Amino acid sequence: MGKDKEKRQELIKNPKGTRDWSGEDVDLLEDILAQISRIFRRHAGKKLDTPVFEREEVLKGKYGEDSKLIYDLKDQGGELLSLRYDLTVPFARWLAMNANLKNYKRFAISKVYRRDQPAIAKGRMREFYQCDIDFAGASDPMMADSEIIAIIVEVFESLEWSGRYTIKLNDRRILDGLFEVCGVPEEKIRMISSAVDKLDKLPWEEVKREMVEMKGLDEAVADKIQTYVTRKGRKDLLEELQKDETLMSNAKANKGIGEMEILMEYLSAWGALDKVSFDLSLARGLDYYTGVIYEVVTEGSAPVIANGAEVAKETPKQGKREKKALDEDEDRSNDPSVGIGSVAAGGRYDNLVERFRPNADLPCVGVSFGVDRIFSITKARIAKGESFSYVSSNVPDVYVMAFGGGGFDGMAKQRIEITKRLLNAGLKVEFTYKKKPKPQVQFKNAETAGAPFAVILGEDEQARGEARVKEMGVPDGHPEKEGVLVKITDLATEVSKRVEMKKMVSKTGEMTAS
Amino acid sequence: MGKDKEKRQELIKNPKGTRDWSGEDVDLLEDILAQISRIFRRHAGKKLDTPVFEREEVLKGKYGEDSKLIYDLKDQGGELLSLRYDLTVPFARWLAMNANLKNYKRFAISKVYRRDQPAIAKGRMREFYQCDIDFAGASDPMMADSEIIAIIVEVFESLEWSGRYTIKLNDRRILDGLFEVCGVPEEKIRMISSAVDKLDKLPWEEVKREMVEMKGLDEAVADKIQTYVTRKGRKDLLEELQKDETLMSNAKANKGIGEMEILMEYLSAWGALDKVSFDLSLARGLDYYTGVIYEVVTEGSAPVIANGAEVAKETPKQGKREKKALDEDEDRSNDPSVGIGSVAAGGRYDNLVERFRPNADLPCVGVSFGVDRIFSITKARIAKGESFSYVSSNVPDVYVMAFGGGGFDGMAKQRIEITKRLLNAGLKVEFTYKKKPKPQVQFKNAETAGAPFAVILGEDEQARGEARVKEMGVPDGHPEKEGVLVKITDLATEVSKRVEMKKMVSKTGEMTAS
Repeated sequence: MGKDKEKRQELIKNPKGTRDWSGEDVDLLEDILAQISRIFRRHAGKKLDTPVFEREEVLKGKYGEDSKLIYDLKDQGGELLSLRYDLTVPFARWLAMNANLKNYKRFAISKVYRRDQPAIAKGRMREFYQCDIDFAGASDPMMADSEIIAIIVEVFESLEWSGRYTIKLNDRRILDGLFEVCGVPEEKIRMISSAVDKLDKLPWEEVKREMVEMKGLDEAVADKIQTYVTRKGRKDLLEELQKDETLMSNAKANKGIGEMEILMEYLSAWGALDKVSFDLSLARGLDYYTGVIYEVVTEGSAPVIANGAEVAKETPKQGKREKKALDEDEDRSNDPSVGIGSVAAGGRYDNLVERFRPNADLPCVGVSFGVDRIFSITKARIAKGESFSYVSSNVPDVYVMAFGGGGFDGMAKQRIEITKRLLNAGLKVEFTYKKKPKPQVQFKNAETAGAPFAVILGEDEQARGEARVKEMGVPDGHPEKEGVLVKITDLATEVSKRVEMKKMVSKTGEMTAS
Repeated sequence: MGKDKEKRQELIKNPKGTRDWSGEDVDLLEDILAQISRIFRRHAGKKLDTPVFEREEVLKGKYGEDSKLIYDLKDQGGELLSLRYDLTVPFARWLAMNANLKNYKRFAISKVYRRDQPAIAKGRMREFYQCDIDFAGASDPMMADSEIIAIIVEVFESLEWSGRYTIKLNDRRILDGLFEVCGVPEEKIRMISSAVDKLDKLPWEEVKREMVEMKGLDEAVADKIQTYVTRKGRKDLLEELQKDETLMSNAKANKGIGEMEILMEYLSAWGALDKVSFDLSLARGLDYYTGVIYEVVTEGSAPVIANGAEVAKETPKQGKREKKALDEDEDRSNDPSVGIGSVAAGGRYDNLVERFRPNADLPCVGVSFGVDRIFSITKARIAKGESFSYVSSNVPDVYVMAFGGGGFDGMAKQRIEITKRLLNAGLKVEFTYKKKPKPQVQFKNAETAGAPFAVILGEDEQARGEARVKEMGVPDGHPEKEGVLVKITDLATEVSKRVEMKKMVSKTGEMTAS
């Protein structure tokens, strides 16, 4: 039996690196997603919901060395399928299938899958949400790009993160140009670029050592790179670069810097310029970017806050299997599009759709919000006592009870009728599934459910067409301790009024307190 | 090149039996899901969102012969995983993991996966949505059950299907009892039950032939079964059965009929009794039901309406592979919990959680809504000219343009500033990503986007702090054909007012028309 039981215990867990979203967590996540998609909709975003799996060849060759993290389905006959790794490639596949579309503003909110070594504390999961908006189609320089950055600002402002985030901004063309100007050999540009990308986590000396010792870069070249990539600013940095004749004589850098100036003009029109930091150290991992790139960092987001996920613990046996199958680079980020510490990231990618349809000519620009991390940080702030206006409460409004003396039948039908009456008024209602429940059981259930009000039925009151409305938890001696008698025909209105009032008071209280 | 191109063409499709949800379809689906989850929340339902895959052993042995339809993931090291087949088993697994929960009202809206032969016209997909609410925990007879049925009624009423649906109702105990009374040998009860379940699609004579010729049932027994399973009604049928002494002397039937009486009492208190049909032919496929069962049928839902899904066509090669891997029973339903023709189904299952945690003692009752089918039927009604109050429009409210003569710079920054101003007022806004767009291009874009209003900027008006607001598509000769001049400081208020007004007029128009 002991062994049998143990075996059964092993069954009841969710897969490693995943979590069940429940209770207040899933409600908070929903509130965050609702805020974000409301903003997407305002910017004329249209929703796209693609299948969780794609034909294997759709994903193949799109993610570089991270392709080993793709989950494949077993070959059970029929198509060979893989779970989606992000939302961008399925969007590109869909655009390629719909050749009539010349432009499209699409958003998507879905889970994606990475067969990575999970690290919960760092927010690295095997199944996690992405929340993306991307604009496909022609745009004069930086017009669509600036609107994506304006959306980022609107999202974090609406999530009440004002003053707590920075949008790091750079351009692949500036970066490539300055590497050329500094004398980085062409074949080393991508690897030097990814070394530079680590400057948010490592000091310059370590990054330099990587360049020189591991990647064989000339030390003088590295020193020249330092003079650029340690600089950040806004229009000031732009003006400095524009005065740098060597840099401006490089065609790529010149183009990138020229468009960065346009972008800053537009960002100031969007009221978003003060939220960005033009940061020459920002490089971003993915290969497919062709222009502007950005990444949103926030205070306290690095190291990432543990999110209290309900995650299955690793058994020693599994651990061993995993380690054989995956490398153990604990520092690899879960999400190449959202580096550790960043809560949103994106950029312009003009050639991806052409991977699926030659000459598609559908340049794209977009952003992906790391909602699991946004959730974790918001949850931690709530735990510290902060409140957010968009977070809704999902407790029932009212609990329907019945009390009576000897011979009391429990009034089950009457409780149902009253429940229905209150539901019809839009209230959230519960009652106890006992035919003859004791008063204390009903009170306990109402408390557990968190209902602020009770409607109490009694046979005598019912006969007079009345019921009692009582606020839960009012102290002894309060004039309404026993509740107030209300006509059943007025019950829905009366309860709704009290529920509204209570919500208003608690909101005002919060506002006064904060 | 020809061959190369062909190969590339093959890449760009979604997996067989799946669809991309986009455009008006995904918006309608969202509106339907919002209506349903609003009702779930009112009944104190709490959301649960489990991973798309489960450890293989969690799903194993839960679906009888349909287990062959489960998608497995490839063994890439680590846990062996399978895609969820429904939302019920993951819920039971989660309940088993959370032993502190004595009761829980959970709802879930997610896609599920069946490696079945797709049949789009019948609504049989490999990836489709389920939308479930289930109450776990003790309930006196039929109290929780009646609330689930009340939820079904609320859902279809709120979806404006009034008068178009029937909830077929039966009880496993009544069915088992009547088979015993008719003399069906115990080992044949499940197979005779599934033959009876076909009475909604086949005439009695064919079902009888299946019982007698294929399943070896005595003909006299089959004839006795006929006297029961062809009967439907409400309290009238209940009273008939209560007078049937042979049936009432069977313990199971007696118990089931007694509780059916209680259920009807409660349904009448919920105002739901007139929506149900007590139907002795309803048997339902799944093994795990232990009490009341129900299924919602609707006019026109059989044969199921094609839903215009964007589904990849089968290539001959794939077809062959498939056919080797799957049997070809074209009549098998995609979803054992929602038979062809039904749009929701469920029942009581008291022992499932114990499969994961012995002595869990968490009886459950629930319902699953077939949202893909609800969507298809609603879409077909819209195509016929019906309208639904909960269906929202997602076109932009207003398109921001700029016109000018020679030397005109396109006013890109000003268009952005005005866009931002309108966005801040909660309006949905778009503009053209061209630095100097031609008027006709901007008008065409606004029309394509479906925006009812345009804001037109001009250099002279701008200098006076004014802009033009124009309703799109007003005929020549209309006094406001050229739009009206509005102060930029009043613009957001002015446009909001017109947008609201237009929405109200179009709503009233619809109401008058219908």
